[in-house]
Amino acid sequence: MRFAVVGGGAWGSALGIHLIRCGHTLRVWAREDDVISSIRERRRNERFLPEVELPEGFEVTPRLDEATEGAEVVLVVIPSQFCRGIYAELATIVSEGTILVSATKGIEIDSLKRMTEVAAEEAPRQPIAVLSGPSFALEVARGHPTTVVVASAQQSVAESLQKALSRRRFRVYRSSDVVGVELGGALKNIIAIAAGIIDGLGYGYNTTAALLTRGLAEISRLAVALGGRADTLAGLAGMGDLVLTCTGGLSRNRRLGQALGQGKSMAEAMASVSVAEGVRTTLAACDLAERAGVEMPISAQMRAVLHQGKQPGEAVDELMSRSLKRE
Amino acid sequence: MRFAVVGGGAWGSALGIHLIRCGHTLRVWAREDDVISSIRERRRNERFLPEVELPEGFEVTPRLDEATEGAEVVLVVIPSQFCRGIYAELATIVSEGTILVSATKGIEIDSLKRMTEVAAEEAPRQPIAVLSGPSFALEVARGHPTTVVVASAQQSVAESLQKALSRRRFRVYRSSDVVGVELGGALKNIIAIAAGIIDGLGYGYNTTAALLTRGLAEISRLAVALGGRADTLAGLAGMGDLVLTCTGGLSRNRRLGQALGQGKSMAEAMASVSVAEGVRTTLAACDLAERAGVEMPISAQMRAVLHQGKQPGEAVDELMSRSLKRE
Repeated sequence: MRFAVVGGGAWGSALGIHLIRCGHTLRVWAREDDVISSIRERRRNERFLPEVELPEGFEVTPRLDEATEGAEVVLVVIPSQFCRGIYAELATIVSEGTILVSATKGIEIDSLKRMTEVAAEEAPRQPIAVLSGPSFALEVARGHPTTVVVASAQQSVAESLQKALSRRRFRVYRSSDVVGVELGGALKNIIAIAAGIIDGLGYGYNTTAALLTRGLAEISRLAVALGGRADTLAGLAGMGDLVLTCTGGLSRNRRLGQALGQGKSMAEAMASVSVAEGVRTTLAACDLAERAGVEMPISAQMRAVLHQGKQPGEAVDELMSRSLKRE
Repeated sequence: MRFAVVGGGAWGSALGIHLIRCGHTLRVWAREDDVISSIRERRRNERFLPEVELPEGFEVTPRLDEATEGAEVVLVVIPSQFCRGIYAELATIVSEGTILVSATKGIEIDSLKRMTEVAAEEAPRQPIAVLSGPSFALEVARGHPTTVVVASAQQSVAESLQKALSRRRFRVYRSSDVVGVELGGALKNIIAIAAGIIDGLGYGYNTTAALLTRGLAEISRLAVALGGRADTLAGLAGMGDLVLTCTGGLSRNRRLGQALGQGKSMAEAMASVSVAEGVRTTLAACDLAERAGVEMPISAQMRAVLHQGKQPGEAVDELMSRSLKRE
C-alpha cells in the first residue's frame, strides 16, 4: 500500500521505518530543512532519531501535496497545536477514500477537542482512525516487540489498518472505541509529569506505583464520562501507555516533571524538553473534568504545580493525606 | 495497640518499623538465630534489611507464644509454604478476638488455596484479614509515601486495621474483596518473572508495557472467575503491585526471570534468589485457570519456561505472534 507520514519527528520516523519493513511505499512530510537534508543526504534523522539508519525507500519532502500524492493512508504525527491546520490542508489535497490516521496524543486546548474530532471537522469526507499504545519510537525502530491499538468508528477501516500495519514483533489490536483510545494517550501525559515529580523529589517505586494506579483510575473516570469504555483504558492505549511513559526513561513529560521535582522553575524545566504535550493537556483535562463533574485529584494538583506555581512536594503531601477511604 | 509480627524478613521488619512509628507496641517472631542476635545486639536486621536502623521498641523472640502474647493483631509475613503450620500453631495460643492478618503473597501449591483460606481452616475462630499493595520493604522503612490495601470479610476488622495502620505517608485503603486483593498479590509474581525475562532478553519498555497490560488482563480474568472483583485488580493490590514488582529493581521474581532471559539455567537462576514465590504460583495459577476455564497465555508460557525447559525467547515470540484480534 502507499502511505504518507506527516511529521518528521522521532515517532513519524519510526513509523516510516516500520511501514517500509511491512513492504509499503512511503513518503514522509517534514517541516524542518535540517531534518530533510539529514534524511536525504545521510539517511538518518539526526535531529530526532539519530540512533537508527533509515532504510531504502524512506523518502522525505517539505511539500504536503507531494508527500500525500496517491497515498491510501496518511498518518499524522505532529504536535497537537498544528493538527487543525494540517487536517484542513489535507482535506483539499487527498483523494476520496484516503484514510487519515491520527498518531498525535493531545487535546486541542481552546476547543477541548480530541484530534480525530479536529480531523473530522476539517476533513469531514475522509475515513478517520487513531493509532495509539505503548510505543517508544526508538524501540520500534530497533524492532523490539511492540503492541499498539488502532481504533476507528468504521470497523472496515480498523481492520484494514490492522492488517496493513501488523508484522512479527509489531502486534496491532483493533478497537471501535476511538474516544477511549484517544483520551488514554492524551491524559496519560498528565500522570507522566507527576511521575517525574516523584522521581525528582527522590521518592521510589512505592510512590510511583500508587500514582500510576490512582492516576489510571482518574483518567479512566474522565474518559468514561466522555463516552470511552473502561476496558479500553485498562488496555494498551490506557494502562499500557501510562506504564511506558511513567516508568520508561525516555519520555519528555516525565523529564519535565523530574526537573520540577528537583526544584527547577517552570521556565527552566520547559527549556530542557522540546514539546511536553502534558502541560497543555493538564489544563484541558481539568476543564473537561469540571464540565463532566468528574473528580481528578492528581490532575488538579498538577494544574496547580504547572500553572499556579504550587510547590511539587506540597502537592504530593496533599494527595497522600486525603481522608481515608474504601478503594 | 499491641501487635505481633510473625516473620523476621525484610517485609516483616519494615512493617515492624512502621507499627512502632504509629505508636503501637510490637513483638516480632523470627526463626533465624543470626537475625535475632543481629536485631538484639546491633539494632539491625543485617540479613534481610541491613540498610535501616531499627527503632526503640523493636523486640524480637524465637518463641511464637512470647511474640503473640497479649497481641490484638498478629501480622503473618512468612513464605507461603510455612503458613499452614504457623496458623495452626497460632490457633492454639492467641486469644479470642485476636485478628490474624496475612501479608504473604502466594498460593498453597497442593490445595491451590489462598493464604486467608489456609488461615481460616487452621484458625477458624479468629477474625482474618489480608494486607497487600505496592510496598517495597526498604521504601516503607525509609518513610517514602506508600499506599496499601487491607481487606476483610468483616467490615469492622478492615476499618479498625485501616485506622491502626494509617499514618502520614502510609495511606491504607480498605476493601471487602479478600479474594481479589489476595489473588492480585499472588498472581502478579508470574508476570514479574516474565518481565524479568524480557529484560534479560534485551527488550525495552514497549515490550514490558505490553506484558504488564496483557498480564493484568489475564490475572484479572482468573481472579474474577474465582470470585474477586475486577476493580480490585485494577487497584493497588492488582495493577499497583504489578507495576511495582515489574518495573522496580528490587523484586526477587523479576531477578529470577532476568537470569533466565540472559540464558542461565533454572538451577543457576534459582540459586541467585532466596525465595521466588512466583515459581510455585505459576503452577497453581495454571491449574486454577484450567479448572475455571480461563485463558492465561502468558502464565502458560511461563509454566513452560519454568517447569518444562522451554526457551524464554521462544515463549515471547509465541506470545507476540498470536492471531490478530480486537483488544
